[in-house]
Amino acid sequence: MQFRHQHKHAYLLMAIQLIFLVLFGIFVRYHPDADAKYHPSFKHKDMGTEDKHGGSDAHPVTVTEGGGHHPTYGMFQDVHVMIFVGFGFLMTFLKRYGFGAVGNNFLVAAVAVQWAILVNGFFHMSGGFIEVSLGSLLGADFVAATVLISFGALLGKTTPTQLLILTMIEIPIFVINEVLGRSYLGAIDMGDSMFVHAFGAYFGLAVSRVLAREDASTEKEGSDKTSDTFAMVGTLFLWLYWPSFNAGAAPGEDQHRAIINTYLALTASCVSAFAISSLLDPDKKFDMVHIQNSTLAGGVAIGTSADLMAQPFGALLVGIIAGVVSVFGYYYLTPFLASRLRVHDTCGVHNLHGMPALIAGVVGAVYASMATEEVYGPSLYLIFPLRAPENGTAELTQMRKELPGLEPGLNRTGVTQAGYQLLALLVTMVVSITGGLLTGAILKMEMLNKLETDDLYEDACYWKLEEEEEVEEQPGKRESSGSLNAAVPMMVSSAKTKDEAPA
Amino acid sequence: MQFRHQHKHAYLLMAIQLIFLVLFGIFVRYHPDADAKYHPSFKHKDMGTEDKHGGSDAHPVTVTEGGGHHPTYGMFQDVHVMIFVGFGFLMTFLKRYGFGAVGNNFLVAAVAVQWAILVNGFFHMSGGFIEVSLGSLLGADFVAATVLISFGALLGKTTPTQLLILTMIEIPIFVINEVLGRSYLGAIDMGDSMFVHAFGAYFGLAVSRVLAREDASTEKEGSDKTSDTFAMVGTLFLWLYWPSFNAGAAPGEDQHRAIINTYLALTASCVSAFAISSLLDPDKKFDMVHIQNSTLAGGVAIGTSADLMAQPFGALLVGIIAGVVSVFGYYYLTPFLASRLRVHDTCGVHNLHGMPALIAGVVGAVYASMATEEVYGPSLYLIFPLRAPENGTAELTQMRKELPGLEPGLNRTGVTQAGYQLLALLVTMVVSITGGLLTGAILKMEMLNKLETDDLYEDACYWKLEEEEEVEEQPGKRESSGSLNAAVPMMVSSAKTKDEAPA
Amino acid sequence: MQFRHQHKHAYLLMAIQLIFLVLFGIFVRYHPDADAKYHPSFKHKDMGTEDKHGGSDAHPVTVTEGGGHHPTYGMFQDVHVMIFVGFGFLMTFLKRYGFGAVGNNFLVAAVAVQWAILVNGFFHMSGGFIEVSLGSLLGADFVAATVLISFGALLGKTTPTQLLILTMIEIPIFVINEVLGRSYLGAIDMGDSMFVHAFGAYFGLAVSRVLAREDASTEKEGSDKTSDTFAMVGTLFLWLYWPSFNAGAAPGEDQHRAIINTYLALTASCVSAFAISSLLDPDKKFDMVHIQNSTLAGGVAIGTSADLMAQPFGALLVGIIAGVVSVFGYYYLTPFLASRLRVHDTCGVHNLHGMPALIAGVVGAVYASMATEEVYGPSLYLIFPLRAPENGTAELTQMRKELPGLEPGLNRTGVTQAGYQLLALLVTMVVSITGGLLTGAILKMEMLNKLETDDLYEDACYWKLEEEEEVEEQPGKRESSGSLNAAVPMMVSSAKTKDEAPA
Repeated sequence: MQFRHQHKHAYLLMAIQLIFLVLFGIFVRYHPDADAKYHPSFKHKDMGTEDKHGGSDAHPVTVTEGGGHHPTYGMFQDVHVMIFVGFGFLMTFLKRYGFGAVGNNFLVAAVAVQWAILVNGFFHMSGGFIEVSLGSLLGADFVAATVLISFGALLGKTTPTQLLILTMIEIPIFVINEVLGRSYLGAIDMGDSMFVHAFGAYFGLAVSRVLAREDASTEKEGSDKTSDTFAMVGTLFLWLYWPSFNAGAAPGEDQHRAIINTYLALTASCVSAFAISSLLDPDKKFDMVHIQNSTLAGGVAIGTSADLMAQPFGALLVGIIAGVVSVFGYYYLTPFLASRLRVHDTCGVHNLHGMPALIAGVVGAVYASMATEEVYGPSLYLIFPLRAPENGTAELTQMRKELPGLEPGLNRTGVTQAGYQLLALLVTMVVSITGGLLTGAILKMEMLNKLETDDLYEDACYWKLEEEEEVEEQPGKRESSGSLNAAVPMMVSSAKTKDEAPA
Repeated sequence: MQFRHQHKHAYLLMAIQLIFLVLFGIFVRYHPDADAKYHPSFKHKDMGTEDKHGGSDAHPVTVTEGGGHHPTYGMFQDVHVMIFVGFGFLMTFLKRYGFGAVGNNFLVAAVAVQWAILVNGFFHMSGGFIEVSLGSLLGADFVAATVLISFGALLGKTTPTQLLILTMIEIPIFVINEVLGRSYLGAIDMGDSMFVHAFGAYFGLAVSRVLAREDASTEKEGSDKTSDTFAMVGTLFLWLYWPSFNAGAAPGEDQHRAIINTYLALTASCVSAFAISSLLDPDKKFDMVHIQNSTLAGGVAIGTSADLMAQPFGALLVGIIAGVVSVFGYYYLTPFLASRLRVHDTCGVHNLHGMPALIAGVVGAVYASMATEEVYGPSLYLIFPLRAPENGTAELTQMRKELPGLEPGLNRTGVTQAGYQLLALLVTMVVSITGGLLTGAILKMEMLNKLETDDLYEDACYWKLEEEEEVEEQPGKRESSGSLNAAVPMMVSSAKTKDEAPA
Repeated sequence: MQFRHQHKHAYLLMAIQLIFLVLFGIFVRYHPDADAKYHPSFKHKDMGTEDKHGGSDAHPVTVTEGGGHHPTYGMFQDVHVMIFVGFGFLMTFLKRYGFGAVGNNFLVAAVAVQWAILVNGFFHMSGGFIEVSLGSLLGADFVAATVLISFGALLGKTTPTQLLILTMIEIPIFVINEVLGRSYLGAIDMGDSMFVHAFGAYFGLAVSRVLAREDASTEKEGSDKTSDTFAMVGTLFLWLYWPSFNAGAAPGEDQHRAIINTYLALTASCVSAFAISSLLDPDKKFDMVHIQNSTLAGGVAIGTSADLMAQPFGALLVGIIAGVVSVFGYYYLTPFLASRLRVHDTCGVHNLHGMPALIAGVVGAVYASMATEEVYGPSLYLIFPLRAPENGTAELTQMRKELPGLEPGLNRTGVTQAGYQLLALLVTMVVSITGGLLTGAILKMEMLNKLETDDLYEDACYWKLEEEEEVEEQPGKRESSGSLNAAVPMMVSSAKTKDEAPA
């Protein structure tokens, strides 16, 4: 069973990659900014100008966020590090699932970015082609983040095959929901808190609910000193580069403000997470689970309004609340969800992404309702494009004197905009939960076998392990340890150890 | 006692964060460059121009260093990584204090940056408000570095409460000393070797002296293979991004030169540290303590003169000397300080920051005394503003033909400037040591209880630990290991293990 | 013997550093762009413009790659991280050689960059001086990469002395080969796959062949869970920043395209490496060796044509092939080389660098032969300078209307250029293998004693270790563990353990 199953993912992987190859061959081309034919001159131009149109053609994330602006290469790299090092190591906290965490994160993200370039692209073809640019690559990273958040809720409980199927299904649903929210409802969400964090979290939790099993909590679902320290590598890089995630695609001043808001919200959630983590503990000790996760909640909670005039006070307040809510969530809600609602959440994505994203959506609506031209000046209509006067009105003509090239809007009021913000949040919840339940049903199909209890949170099932690792328990066997790095194809006899015992 | 005490830090933390919130609400606003109202136009402007005035208004560090120039976002992020990943992991070398190292570093830095924005800001209010910008955030990181250096001398020997009090006290003293040195004495210190490294080290050592205890050196004050490897993550990111620390706020060519000088000094101190580490060892082996710390000494030692015309030769020479002095310090001075002067220095900050910073101060004075218009051209008066001719003189008028907008100076000679450089170093020593002794006295107060011997360099006292960790010693108990990540509030029974035994 | 030997490397190191100091004093100066005297004005200029000429004067790597363009500081830092964190941690997979991996990597790289600045510089003196700039520093990192790749083949089997001698010899040979290939043969190689990866790999393998020993494979040549996880830190930073390695020195659009090509090739090699790793395993498990290394093969394989019009399809295809070939290499070729040809390759650099670099060279030739003005437009003559019309021809005059300042070329056809590409690859193979055999012979000399079998892949021989580390085997001795970090000069009694047995 295991065996037949394990066969599957290798072939599935190769098939997916070859299909991507064909689709890229048919549909994907360089964006003109990256095409040698359109080389404008000798003079050096930084990624910035080069990629000017990138954002606007490439995919929804930067379109709507960047309003035609583009990410800088540096900020793109920051986000790239968050996806592969940040998420990858954050999930290594499980003491026996380190390879599965950082390895599957690596694999899933590499599949997700390719699939995201295609799916995002299909919604924004240009002359029958998908034009790939730095903007597309950043957008693909955002999509990958969504899938990895869902993965966090399922960490250690799925087979690689299930993960791959989830990735292939979740991404189209994600893109549809984002297009709905941004293009149809005209909601803004600079840091993607609603479209990435809320969506990813509730999608993953819905899948987890469908795959619920009595034996989900085992002794292996714990950490040790080393695995918790590795997890801090992930936490810190996520925490440090989060301003690039929230501000990467914003223009000019907005980018500067989004950096400040995110930085401040993160410092506040860090401090409040430490405080509450200690307060709730009977021995008043800090809990690494909270330090690894809840310190980041501020980055999520400020996301939707990262570019709004929240002022430093607002950013700190949002950060404080997010840190507090997140730790309380780990303390009371996670166990409740697991026991009462049978929603088991390995990484606690509901506390790091789910609830803080709900806060973000509401905070975004509040600031949207309060946004006035007194505070924002003309840029109000750049940040909230649909608040601009309608086409052909005198107001628009008037405004264009200040903002040449301003696109006509729908003359929305702040309160109307706020309403649409909340509607987008609601739609995201409905789409992600429905999509998650559907996907869970698919992953539960008979043909896909599930993990045995003993394989939960356990690398041995899918990763070749040196016997070295067993030494702690069986010092005697040390001498027989083979040489992994001579890469001699060997039947690792660890297959005989209890970790491998077919359950 | 422990218990009552442990209560304290959680409440203290929450109180501090709420006070910050109120102060930010009253005093802190976005810098105009980050304020939507002043959005200049559609066209994208990179952080650079956006933040042009940031440096000059925000806080002393970038004012004086940047002379009105601003950090780029990329360099800011490099420094940000140094503070949280660099310092955090560098201190994880203790085999039983990894959480305390990276965790307390995270917490202290998050408190410090907020406090630094406020305190720096109070010295540079604009229209009754503190204007926050990318420049303020970078400046806050420099201040955090100072506190973390002091923390290094005390690593594993303080309670969180003591650390928080130290943070709150040290920062105002730091800012006063920097304003004294830069604004009143007109000393230059591009890499902050005097104002950050010397100050932080001697402040921390003074505190350590007051808190001196007979039982400071225990068996737990050691490293193991894994903890030493984690520490290398910190070392390498500090070593790699140090050029951003020394050059971040410098203008044009000066920035380019500061990068080259720092890079070369670091490579030289790396090589000389390896050489001396081996030479001094009876078995001629390398010592990870030296590799983790002394390889960085060159970055400190070149700091003050990072932007001066030291030439590659000078940068290498300074780096070589710093590496040699630092390793000798670990070998002979640290034990001497601990035994004779009762100054126990857990991380050896005196060898990584203290002595190299003294070298930096002297080297800076030497190069300042040698600086001539022949070598520097007109930019001499940009790098040493007080060497510019005095107001109303013909020389100033003449010079402004070459350097329009040049500020009048005091017509200082190179030797005079050198004298003030040394004076600033002396003042820094006096202020930091006095401030440290004072702070130590406060931290020693009865109401703050100190760590028991068994709690020194030990996570178990303040961090919830999986029993997993005890396995090495008690394999039998493994099965009873609870699930940390289900986050069920449980009384970790490890409280029963010897690590927890109330001393 | 050991002892006398271990003396050597400390003195050798100090001597090398002092010789570098003298040579820098005589020959090295700041590039004008970094010289205060040439400070152009007040206005801030980003590294970019500042360093405009840097590339063209500093050294072959950026000259030829950058065609007068310069690296940005951010991309330089990415590459810098790859060299010290990427390579350093990638090699920490050995369970008992973590210090030797990250430590020797640190030392060798720090020596290599200084030596590279000198040797590169000697080939491009300007007015009797070597002008150092950001361009030189990036170039030095590329050279260091070459040495570290060779080091990978020898990991755990050489003494520090042997490593240092190898570094001093390999670099001049590397520079000669690169000048031959770029300047004399006019080969292009944007990502340095031929000049860095192929050269480094085959040079190292040739050395390994000469130093071949029967006892090369020992039980210690294995990994454990922790060491494999540390290695992933290296893998991921290499994987993430590889686009900066391949695109760092490219101009405008070419840089944008090189980023896209590299990013796509890396994602494809990641997926195909996972797939094949599982397929080839009897239990269908993933093998960390492949995940750590073969996922990167795409970055090497696309290197030479990173800036060519490969289109996304081409980049993916190259990546897929590279990942497949690399894993097959680990599975079948590495054991074959070790057993039949007596070429032992500790890290499998032949699979990560060697074969993928051969693919890169061939792919580069293919795309070069296919390059037409229809596809590239005028920039064809910027990317392939020797395809430009010859001096004094009407075509050149004509073309200069479109590309003012275009340098005259040799009017090469695509096929001719392809031929020279293959010739450069061939020359690189011959030079690197010959150089490696020669170097190996020198390292084998009697005066340099070699490691005893028990010292292979073992830190204890050259690194001071806490007894803590021995605990696994001798729990009883724990209490006697000394304090490393009090840095008291002590005779670590671990000298008594078997690891230390004098050979």
